Amino acid sequence: MKTGVLGTGIVGTTIASKLVQLGIDVKMGAREAGNSKAVAWSKSNGARASEGSFADAATFGELLFNCTSGTGSLPALEAAGAGNLGSKILVDISNPLDFSKGPPPSLSVCNTDSLAEQIQRAFPNLKVVKALNTMTAAIMVNPSLIKGDHVVFISGNDAGAKNKVKELLTSGFGWQQVLDLGDLTAARGQEMLLPFWLRVYGALQSPMFNFNIAR
Amino acid sequence: MKTGVLGTGIVGTTIASKLVQLGIDVKMGAREAGNSKAVAWSKSNGARASEGSFADAATFGELLFNCTSGTGSLPALEAAGAGNLGSKILVDISNPLDFSKGPPPSLSVCNTDSLAEQIQRAFPNLKVVKALNTMTAAIMVNPSLIKGDHVVFISGNDAGAKNKVKELLTSGFGWQQVLDLGDLTAARGQEMLLPFWLRVYGALQSPMFNFNIAR
Repeated sequence: MKTGVLGTGIVGTTIASKLVQLGIDVKMGAREAGNSKAVAWSKSNGARASEGSFADAATFGELLFNCTSGTGSLPALEAAGAGNLGSKILVDISNPLDFSKGPPPSLSVCNTDSLAEQIQRAFPNLKVVKALNTMTAAIMVNPSLIKGDHVVFISGNDAGAKNKVKELLTSGFGWQQVLDLGDLTAARGQEMLLPFWLRVYGALQSPMFNFNIAR
Repeated sequence: MKTGVLGTGIVGTTIASKLVQLGIDVKMGAREAGNSKAVAWSKSNGARASEGSFADAATFGELLFNCTSGTGSLPALEAAGAGNLGSKILVDISNPLDFSKGPPPSLSVCNTDSLAEQIQRAFPNLKVVKALNTMTAAIMVNPSLIKGDHVVFISGNDAGAKNKVKELLTSGFGWQQVLDLGDLTAARGQEMLLPFWLRVYGALQSPMFNFNIAR
């Protein structure tokens, strides 16, 4: 399988490196081909790793990951181009955090809408699956870092797309529990977890935690 | 200890009944004394149970619980009266759910503010402690209904008030884990959990769950 990872930050490099470890070809996309972080990542991750523009990554991947910042997501996808994005699956890991007013960040969209839904509306053919946005990057691809039961949440409008993402999360990334919250309006709740996540981070003085649903 | 419980719904009656079981005197407050639900609750809960107006309950209690609906909270507290509320501790269990636009409810305040902070600003002498708003009523007073580890979150600006509430939650209500998220701005995150809670409820088809922070 060929994948495109949009974004060169800690989330993008973490996801991209894990995919390469799983034997999956990855093209990391940035605003321009030759981005120094993307080049550094590509050079240190072997033959399956390559880099290019957002459009290059979108064209290359059969499965795409949005690992850009919340404010950068729609511009990155516009740069990728609707034609290149086509009707592919986009795993949306982004969070609409707004740091413009200083800490703590607020959300630039929430409550009656979400960034995932904004992306879905802007690119109606894309199969957007919201997932992995509620834990720190290291845990996304290595859930065994956390002891005991804990969960990754997914939502999206396309059942087939969610099944493919769920398969990758379980068989690939090692998740024991994937909870499907339904259609993409559930992304509102997933994204609204972030302000809460930040307070738990503050209380524990560590990002090495994740949510569980105890029953 | 004497307590005042504002609100006659499932949360109010659940909290009030538990307090009576713990040997604590409770006056349940409603918009008017003689509220049929408050009278019914009072009659079936023995000598420690009484009822009256919001002002009566606020005057009676040394410790107060806001168990009104989100939209009813500020009007209820205004009816209780700033003089009667004084500098007492108010455990705020409410959620600012707005059902006016049909299901699913949105939040009437969120992101850069919270209902708990609105209450605190309106009654600056009150010691508002946000707690217990993130699980169904039965679990609030009987956490052993849920297997495994799970958590009640608290926040507030007064450390002494939080300690008193924490003591009641652990020794009284039986909570094993109370996580202090810091000052009352954390209530934004606690309240923003609700849209997420509703989606988990939908996915599990049951309200009998609670959040845990796995590490």
